[in-house]
Amino acid sequence: MTKDELIRGITRYFHEQIPFNTLLGIQVVEANATRVELQLVMKPELVGNTHHGILHGGVTASLLDVAGGLAALINTIDKLADVDPQGLQKRMQNIGTIDMRVDYLLPGFGERFFCFAEVVRHGHRVAVTRMELLNEKDKRIALGTATYMVG
Amino acid sequence: MTKDELIRGITRYFHEQIPFNTLLGIQVVEANATRVELQLVMKPELVGNTHHGILHGGVTASLLDVAGGLAALINTIDKLADVDPQGLQKRMQNIGTIDMRVDYLLPGFGERFFCFAEVVRHGHRVAVTRMELLNEKDKRIALGTATYMVG
Amino acid sequence: MTKDELIRGITRYFHEQIPFNTLLGIQVVEANATRVELQLVMKPELVGNTHHGILHGGVTASLLDVAGGLAALINTIDKLADVDPQGLQKRMQNIGTIDMRVDYLLPGFGERFFCFAEVVRHGHRVAVTRMELLNEKDKRIALGTATYMVG
Amino acid sequence: MTKDELIRGITRYFHEQIPFNTLLGIQVVEANATRVELQLVMKPELVGNTHHGILHGGVTASLLDVAGGLAALINTIDKLADVDPQGLQKRMQNIGTIDMRVDYLLPGFGERFFCFAEVVRHGHRVAVTRMELLNEKDKRIALGTATYMVG
Repeated sequence: MTKDELIRGITRYFHEQIPFNTLLGIQVVEANATRVELQLVMKPELVGNTHHGILHGGVTASLLDVAGGLAALINTIDKLADVDPQGLQKRMQNIGTIDMRVDYLLPGFGERFFCFAEVVRHGHRVAVTRMELLNEKDKRIALGTATYMVG
Repeated sequence: MTKDELIRGITRYFHEQIPFNTLLGIQVVEANATRVELQLVMKPELVGNTHHGILHGGVTASLLDVAGGLAALINTIDKLADVDPQGLQKRMQNIGTIDMRVDYLLPGFGERFFCFAEVVRHGHRVAVTRMELLNEKDKRIALGTATYMVG
Repeated sequence: MTKDELIRGITRYFHEQIPFNTLLGIQVVEANATRVELQLVMKPELVGNTHHGILHGGVTASLLDVAGGLAALINTIDKLADVDPQGLQKRMQNIGTIDMRVDYLLPGFGERFFCFAEVVRHGHRVAVTRMELLNEKDKRIALGTATYMVG
Repeated sequence: MTKDELIRGITRYFHEQIPFNTLLGIQVVEANATRVELQLVMKPELVGNTHHGILHGGVTASLLDVAGGLAALINTIDKLADVDPQGLQKRMQNIGTIDMRVDYLLPGFGERFFCFAEVVRHGHRVAVTRMELLNEKDKRIALGTATYMVG
């Protein structure tokens, strides 16, 4: 299995097989070593404030964490010297979010949301990512910074 | 309307009427000026890691934010000199999460989760809360700290 | 007093009169509504790790907070309709850091450090800024995000 | 060298030999696997707001980081099966703050400050600590949460 195949497999897993991602409707638009982009279409169950019909802060946090986690994971695979299936499986079991900060900049108005992530610290054991969530009018709804265990 | 009635009304709104809280199955067990406790029963749609069947980090973040937000809101009402419906409505419109930090301490194994929040900064405009998420075996899954606009 | 005079006065205060800024040797290189840049020359008292001679994490946090605070303050003044001395003095008394996150990306090696801040949430009451600290080789040592009370 | 000797040696290093800790006047009052307590006496150079004579936010952040780092380090040593000098030295080189959140709850009035830290995540590679800063009147000035690389 090549690195590219592995990255495609993981992307498909995030897109299709993680139950909570499916419940929310999170779609992976793009995912490579440079950049991750997710998309989410607004629906009534995701509302957090019924007066204004805006996105629940928990959905925002979920999107930021999924984007950051996928970016950290792909970046880790991309930097591997070779894809050793056993070593990789062991690494994968250790992977997880250590901590995350979310900044809610504007109320979550919108019909469609886009979430971007990039890796800002590329460590052997720990990766740090920065994320942002925009709506279809390009308004920046939220920012995130998260630390992931990657090895 | 007395403060107590108002707090009960808001608690019911969080429990029954916020669509995303209902989707997750968040229940408000207790909510007063001293303490907020939420409960969530695990279900397949909330899984974030299909190998281990553990709670999605986005659900954890959602619970922490809902608990902190409810605690900040009740605390604000509790400190009001009197319940002036108009002034209150104006305040309510400004209420929202400014930022939140989540620390994921242990993988989210469990059948039932409990989330607690307390207010650590009681300001006229800004409140800060600390939260924790435990499972039914009393393992501390996650901690949170959040800042809310309250006036 | 015009806004520009006021901003120059505040910048001078940060640069020359805040005792802890002077102790560290923080210099304000540039400060306007768009951008704040600070500079710090390394000296032996600022070391946090004597094996490697690197900058103490507390100095990093101090620089990020000073840069973010100055950016939040100037941005607030810049948005005022007019400079009402009394109203301004009242606002100034409420100003302060609510919370800050620091991400330490690389060990603080360097002879000279540069710290930049920009405002990402421009509120009437609360501002959020993002900051970064680079060394003279353009290595990104740390990132920060902070929330300030501004009114 | 026993674990206890090692912990005492490290505590002495933090107390006496880290230049920036000395510059601030940070004293280690107590340091063991359960609890770290630091003390700082206010002095004019540590002021951040000359109108009110309050502690600079950077000093607060420094104290919280030093307390958390010392707690993470002692906790790591305490959990070692045996003190292997070579392995230890290698671990020590990897040790450092990954990220920190500071919540400024009250203005830093006081003549004497006390900073406490406890470890809330005890990992082989990553530790998480929570800290608080009080003044001599037992007012809680600030809270912190930090993530450290420990292996």
